Amino acid sequence: MNQDTLIIGFPEYADQTEGLARAADLPFTILDIHHFPDGESKITLPGLLPKQVILVRSLDHPNDRLVELILAAAGARQLGAEHISLVAPYLCYMRQDKAFHAGEVVSQPVIGSCLASHFDALLTVDAHLHRVHSLSDAVPVSPAINLTATDPMAHFLQDRVDAPYLIGPDGESEQWVAAIASHYGFDYAVAEKERLGDRQVKIRMPDCGYENRNLVLVDDVASTGRTLLEAARLLQAHRPASISVLVTHALFIGDAQERLTRAGVHNIWSCDAIPHSSNAVPLAGLLAGALPALLTRNN
Amino acid sequence: MNQDTLIIGFPEYADQTEGLARAADLPFTILDIHHFPDGESKITLPGLLPKQVILVRSLDHPNDRLVELILAAAGARQLGAEHISLVAPYLCYMRQDKAFHAGEVVSQPVIGSCLASHFDALLTVDAHLHRVHSLSDAVPVSPAINLTATDPMAHFLQDRVDAPYLIGPDGESEQWVAAIASHYGFDYAVAEKERLGDRQVKIRMPDCGYENRNLVLVDDVASTGRTLLEAARLLQAHRPASISVLVTHALFIGDAQERLTRAGVHNIWSCDAIPHSSNAVPLAGLLAGALPALLTRNN
Repeated sequence: MNQDTLIIGFPEYADQTEGLARAADLPFTILDIHHFPDGESKITLPGLLPKQVILVRSLDHPNDRLVELILAAAGARQLGAEHISLVAPYLCYMRQDKAFHAGEVVSQPVIGSCLASHFDALLTVDAHLHRVHSLSDAVPVSPAINLTATDPMAHFLQDRVDAPYLIGPDGESEQWVAAIASHYGFDYAVAEKERLGDRQVKIRMPDCGYENRNLVLVDDVASTGRTLLEAARLLQAHRPASISVLVTHALFIGDAQERLTRAGVHNIWSCDAIPHSSNAVPLAGLLAGALPALLTRNN
Repeated sequence: MNQDTLIIGFPEYADQTEGLARAADLPFTILDIHHFPDGESKITLPGLLPKQVILVRSLDHPNDRLVELILAAAGARQLGAEHISLVAPYLCYMRQDKAFHAGEVVSQPVIGSCLASHFDALLTVDAHLHRVHSLSDAVPVSPAINLTATDPMAHFLQDRVDAPYLIGPDGESEQWVAAIASHYGFDYAVAEKERLGDRQVKIRMPDCGYENRNLVLVDDVASTGRTLLEAARLLQAHRPASISVLVTHALFIGDAQERLTRAGVHNIWSCDAIPHSSNAVPLAGLLAGALPALLTRNN
């Protein structure tokens, strides 16, 4: 790999940035953010940059982080970087890909072209794409790589749970749950979900022998956690040995985590895509493996 | 003026939008913002838009408001608008126009080109430009109009204060304070300011007959309010009849307003560029007067 490459992380993402840099054997630094009292942000980068720069930050708290990310990318360009990649394990605004009512702004392509105008390449993990099937349709850069965390998740569960029985919360997740299960031949089942609003869901759970099993609810993102909560409540009635939760993206908004614990969930685990107390599955190795594909080959 | 023009305001800016529409005799609507639990925003515009659209919003709380503003502008483009103007009486990121240390990102041109890539024309009021002298150098659209609120401020003071004596808090404000004073021949003086940090300033006040006068501290923006507070304390020693504050942009971060009141400031007034309890000077008339220059003439 080209040694004239610098990985630059954001302060809240320092651990993940360091992990990625070590796994990729590349130098790294953490940029500085100063927050002015009026809500503006000032970004300070190293004074001299190599031609290739990789910015690393997840885009939870999307509006603040997007503006700062764009300032950092444009600043890196001002300071001489010629090829700028974005490693954003959690990407925002990927779900709004269609107007459900007249006048609704379809934000996915707007945020996508905004990112594309500042970055040359993109790497993310388990991006929640619905009707758009390729990440590069949403964020038109090349390459735009959407990895899946199913491998590290499978290894983690094999290490930590005795004969885990995976439960996917909705039909959309079936292929993804099957991918985690296939590594070690875990059992799995997939529920049916109906969304009634931002914070309300209805779930139907297939009835297939959960008693005395170590159940693991797996999902790509835990937002308000209502889906997981509803599923955990339904599963509780089947007297399993344990219920755990494992997600790629740990948003866990508000009291989502406490609610799950109160509903009898024994373990709440997540990948470290979004920094969170539940982080248990580092993605550094997975991301580092894809970095060479992200970088230009001829400078 | 072209009747095929729609003014669109944001919910927090509904009063100002309506005021502008009435003063300009143009139709208006307020767009809808839905905030998802994960921090993403969904914007809904009218389903059908005329060719010319004017979006109206001030950019305090800059990062959130910028992202939503860009979504709205791109959405208006998706829905058929061909010429989109921005009326942002308070514009953000205009002060960061120079790197004071190696590696500092100069955000003014970054935010400026971001706005320019979504808007065709811009109207703002008392933009805080330092080293960049023309607004179109900061936001490269044509026209980019930077109005000053000195006229409505002068009329307001003439109405409300008996023989006001204007005080500008620093040398930079001299021309601006002189412009307010010149309308009705108000007395004025200008202090010297030294900035020691984000929230600390040192002020030297010229000694020129404040006793028993109605002093009015005028400034373009009240952010933490430390400059005004320091000035008010110094002036208090001169036993004036009253001390008032009048600013274009009422940020008044944290307890800025209470501190001023506790320091003996009798009245805190502002233009309605930023919605705030101190708003007393509507800018609708001023802004409406400049709208024809903003719009395209041939469609």
